[in-house]
Amino acid sequence: MTARIREFLAARRPEGPCLVLDLDVVRDNFLSFRRALPDSRVFYAVKANPAPEVLSLLAGLGSNFDCASVAEIEMALEAGATPDRISFGNTIKKERDVARAFLLGVDLFAVDSIAEVEKVARQAPGARVFCRILCDGAGAEWPLSRKFGCEPEMAIDVLEAAQQRGLAAYGVSFHVGSQQGNTEAWDGALASAAEIFRVLGERGIHLKMVNLGGGFPTRYLRDIPAVEAYGRSIENAIRSHFGNRIPETIIEPGRGMVGSAGVIKTEVVLISQKGGADDMRWVFLDIGKFGGLAETMDEAIRYPLVTRHEGAASTPCIVAGPTCDSADVLYEKTPYDLPITLEIGDEILIEGTGAYTTTYASVAFNGFPPLQAYVI
Amino acid sequence: MTARIREFLAARRPEGPCLVLDLDVVRDNFLSFRRALPDSRVFYAVKANPAPEVLSLLAGLGSNFDCASVAEIEMALEAGATPDRISFGNTIKKERDVARAFLLGVDLFAVDSIAEVEKVARQAPGARVFCRILCDGAGAEWPLSRKFGCEPEMAIDVLEAAQQRGLAAYGVSFHVGSQQGNTEAWDGALASAAEIFRVLGERGIHLKMVNLGGGFPTRYLRDIPAVEAYGRSIENAIRSHFGNRIPETIIEPGRGMVGSAGVIKTEVVLISQKGGADDMRWVFLDIGKFGGLAETMDEAIRYPLVTRHEGAASTPCIVAGPTCDSADVLYEKTPYDLPITLEIGDEILIEGTGAYTTTYASVAFNGFPPLQAYVI
Repeated sequence: MTARIREFLAARRPEGPCLVLDLDVVRDNFLSFRRALPDSRVFYAVKANPAPEVLSLLAGLGSNFDCASVAEIEMALEAGATPDRISFGNTIKKERDVARAFLLGVDLFAVDSIAEVEKVARQAPGARVFCRILCDGAGAEWPLSRKFGCEPEMAIDVLEAAQQRGLAAYGVSFHVGSQQGNTEAWDGALASAAEIFRVLGERGIHLKMVNLGGGFPTRYLRDIPAVEAYGRSIENAIRSHFGNRIPETIIEPGRGMVGSAGVIKTEVVLISQKGGADDMRWVFLDIGKFGGLAETMDEAIRYPLVTRHEGAASTPCIVAGPTCDSADVLYEKTPYDLPITLEIGDEILIEGTGAYTTTYASVAFNGFPPLQAYVI
Repeated sequence: MTARIREFLAARRPEGPCLVLDLDVVRDNFLSFRRALPDSRVFYAVKANPAPEVLSLLAGLGSNFDCASVAEIEMALEAGATPDRISFGNTIKKERDVARAFLLGVDLFAVDSIAEVEKVARQAPGARVFCRILCDGAGAEWPLSRKFGCEPEMAIDVLEAAQQRGLAAYGVSFHVGSQQGNTEAWDGALASAAEIFRVLGERGIHLKMVNLGGGFPTRYLRDIPAVEAYGRSIENAIRSHFGNRIPETIIEPGRGMVGSAGVIKTEVVLISQKGGADDMRWVFLDIGKFGGLAETMDEAIRYPLVTRHEGAASTPCIVAGPTCDSADVLYEKTPYDLPITLEIGDEILIEGTGAYTTTYASVAFNGFPPLQAYVI
């Protein structure tokens, strides 16, 4: 929560739920990443929050951009990034989208299979590709499935195939899991990456880059390590696995760049109980899983909720959204302590909501409009 | 799948994933409900698919409308429904939205708590309210949480409070769970409803209506009972619990009205494997959890996938969406058998997708546009 956000809300009193995003925090976060990992290039993960103001600010600060689709590439270009500062980081691309991206000047592509290498080779001849490897994601709060990446031995074949098809086998990427609380989580994957560099080097293919991915956390309810701690730990791991042949590195922060910059203003629509033996309070907000808080899925991300009843006694509540969908419950397995003095109509501020909220919101589920956003 | 949908897709070849909805099927479904439950009024659950063409068709056929928000009420009015044919069926309403609805002429409101009764009493004096009771939802594929409804004993207090505050205590509602496969599922809740009628009758409050809710299924992979079987079973249960004092009844089909009318056209973006001991194929489509298939959450709804390889040998696959979000996996715990001859670029038709798809789609997650829809 920043003074600028508080002042904006007090002055504007916007109707309905909305996100307010403070660009000063985004700037601070960018500079922290650069200080903590001075030898890595920052590729902002556009999917976390593609607001034009965020992209322009970051483009001006010299950031690069990790894009998931042609639309995101176009947004990054629009914001002032040159194509050499853009990576098409999705391992799942339509062949015609590879062609579109290449036409726009993008020449860095993620792959994790030979089928994807073949698309890139056909549509983006000579481009650089990096292969994503699987990573177990232990320690992450929004853990990754096996959806992206392949086994490290297979990555060797994928990169060799790329080189054979006229592409530049450029590097290895991995992702340690989103909202990663363990600063050492990069070590194992860096060991695998170094081994891939070694084996391919013996075959005359000299990789240049390790993409360290994202995973850098935002502070929700629990304290998180400072970004400097991540920087030191990653630097040590790189040195221990690559010795004096340090590769280029890039990082792809998304949540870590914008999460802490945003606050969602919401309103208590109803507080009720169910009767019988169940005296737990249900607190219904005017935003839920379908209005932007999709990351409460399985109660993964636990946002700080700030009320005007600071310091009041509290009891555990079930927190739910406003739609007629019974899956639209935010916190139930682990109820959320809220003040006993909380009332219908009260405002609740949800902190740490700058990432993965606006674009996750549904178009019009139950007739509720998507999340409004104000970038200040 | 209907001939009209096949012909539309063959003629128009729309780019990107899209839903095609056949209004003839919606009409047939409406008429089936009316035949199967001739004594019940149909309130279409607008949230299932609020396409203007669907609402206009149903308004013309004489349907009533169950609305979750003021926006849905306005859509129903726009489509030609008069306000007396509209129910504000969400138990979680902002007080100012109750006022707006009442101003538009709506006078039937759902409640499940005294706090909600008080809002309605203040903003919609004299309106009719029905109280939703909890129902265990056994037998449902998209089971309901305890989010909506209260214990039956509490419903008595809620309805009595409504009457005392100048509202008309009008009836009882419940929901047996979406995609309900058990035609007998209504029996227990009808017993509770009859008991509420009896107790309140002794206090001089004579309820008039039972809202039987939705839950009527769409055929996905498994066969479902015919709507006539639901009609017979519900009629028997009403007679057994209410004797010769049969109340008015209403039903609120959503999925059962439009689910079978829609087909989503999608494209295979990538087929790959992960290497190592894991030789399972991953099949990535250009639509996923954030593009309209949110009901695959926890693999709840298992849609039929139709390929051009009818009859070919098949093996289990993991099916996933196109976004850079590792939660965007549709079927993994229970893999999906797909033809071994399936290829990148193939079209896959997803049947039974007329309900809970277009409006569930995210605004622009990963830069992918929301689901396009064609109503024919």
